[in-house]
Amino acid sequence: MTENKPLILITNDDGVDAKGIKFLAETVKDFGKVVVVAPAQPMSAQSHAITVRDPLRYKLVSSTENFEVYVCNGTPVDCIKLGLHQIMSNVPSIILSGINHGPNLSASVFYSGTMAAAIEGCLNQIPSIGFSLDDFSHNADFSQTRPYIRQIVQQTLEQGLANNVCLNVNFPAKPEASIKGVKIVRQLHGKWREEFIQREHPHGGHYYWLSGDFISMEPEATDTDTWAVENGYVSIVPTQLDLTAHHFIQNLKTWNLNVYEEKK
Amino acid sequence: MTENKPLILITNDDGVDAKGIKFLAETVKDFGKVVVVAPAQPMSAQSHAITVRDPLRYKLVSSTENFEVYVCNGTPVDCIKLGLHQIMSNVPSIILSGINHGPNLSASVFYSGTMAAAIEGCLNQIPSIGFSLDDFSHNADFSQTRPYIRQIVQQTLEQGLANNVCLNVNFPAKPEASIKGVKIVRQLHGKWREEFIQREHPHGGHYYWLSGDFISMEPEATDTDTWAVENGYVSIVPTQLDLTAHHFIQNLKTWNLNVYEEKK
Repeated sequence: MTENKPLILITNDDGVDAKGIKFLAETVKDFGKVVVVAPAQPMSAQSHAITVRDPLRYKLVSSTENFEVYVCNGTPVDCIKLGLHQIMSNVPSIILSGINHGPNLSASVFYSGTMAAAIEGCLNQIPSIGFSLDDFSHNADFSQTRPYIRQIVQQTLEQGLANNVCLNVNFPAKPEASIKGVKIVRQLHGKWREEFIQREHPHGGHYYWLSGDFISMEPEATDTDTWAVENGYVSIVPTQLDLTAHHFIQNLKTWNLNVYEEKK
Repeated sequence: MTENKPLILITNDDGVDAKGIKFLAETVKDFGKVVVVAPAQPMSAQSHAITVRDPLRYKLVSSTENFEVYVCNGTPVDCIKLGLHQIMSNVPSIILSGINHGPNLSASVFYSGTMAAAIEGCLNQIPSIGFSLDDFSHNADFSQTRPYIRQIVQQTLEQGLANNVCLNVNFPAKPEASIKGVKIVRQLHGKWREEFIQREHPHGGHYYWLSGDFISMEPEATDTDTWAVENGYVSIVPTQLDLTAHHFIQNLKTWNLNVYEEKK
């Protein structure tokens, strides 16, 4: 074990001080060497944003032989880039992101900094997993996730993941005894129905807070991430990075689009 | 035409003053009524980020009967949300994003604010298109894109798009006469190889600028977006929003994961 000790890179989008990332790092630390590179501030809903107009800074905040913690001023994806290309001298065996305070189900995968970090790891051909808990509270109870995380990480280290595939794991906010097991599922087709909450500025004018409800486009489906978590299962969606709508290519080729095709 | 005049919502990630969005709005304005809702500041590489910790503000900056321009302090995705759910009283017929100063090919779709806006439109079941030019300069020449944009928008208005599909269109930075036509292609499998450029702070310590080169994982492939643009074609990738790796679900089901499955 000592010689082939896996190197584990961990980040999140709630910031380095969040309970979720501390719990995640503690849960897997005996698997190998852990390097945490996490944002100084909460970065929820930052998606795959990267910092290109401002400089990045990072610093080591604590270090023992097998456990290092760095903090940076960037986004979760910046943290992965800094970890892989600046901070670590070896390529990690696995990248873990989370545990997010709040679920990342259905279309939330597009807004999520947690999943963006996992996707960034996957773009770099490293097995990567995003973990999220269906509870937004700062002091959420993560204890029920421990045996699942250990098993999922262990299996991923043993089995590897396919090229271009990472995992999106969501946990119900339930005690361990009430969780029914793991479901391998697909991303629910859904969206957010926005509402803007208008407030009056004391010095004139208005400002708006983004708010809204989630809408399922397929409320009957039982093979989806959202259904699984709502029904007491741990959901795992294998998540891939080819956004091409392959099924629509032939249709598009029939459109009258090649306006200058004759020049070929 | 007057009665069924299409309502066109336009945004971008380079900001309301960018040449690309002005060119886009001018190019399509005779198709219907145009409403521009764009960020006040450049928002490149903001991906699908949304503003949840700060309030949003927007204002009308110019208005004629069929052409309104709003500016907001948010991201491209915030602009779409504000446009659809706060500013416009009718659902637009189409959402256009761009023209981005710089390409959005291959894995760049994950970082791109331009494509995030199109994806947000698609999540809202509105035909949506992201346009990008393979030229980062502020004063880029967009004139060659005009006939293509008009044809693609016209065809999209006529044909519609499949559920959960939007379009990612990229233009070569070449004069109109050198462009060979349109290619319907897929997203290249590639990634960015990062480099952090280190600078010394005058008052001590270091800071880092994110930089890097794009790496193709399939340099021989000729059916990809990157190949098409590099070879003088306008690339169109039909882009879909289900990130599920359907091909990996069966594999994952064979893993030893259902640690508490017996409780079912």
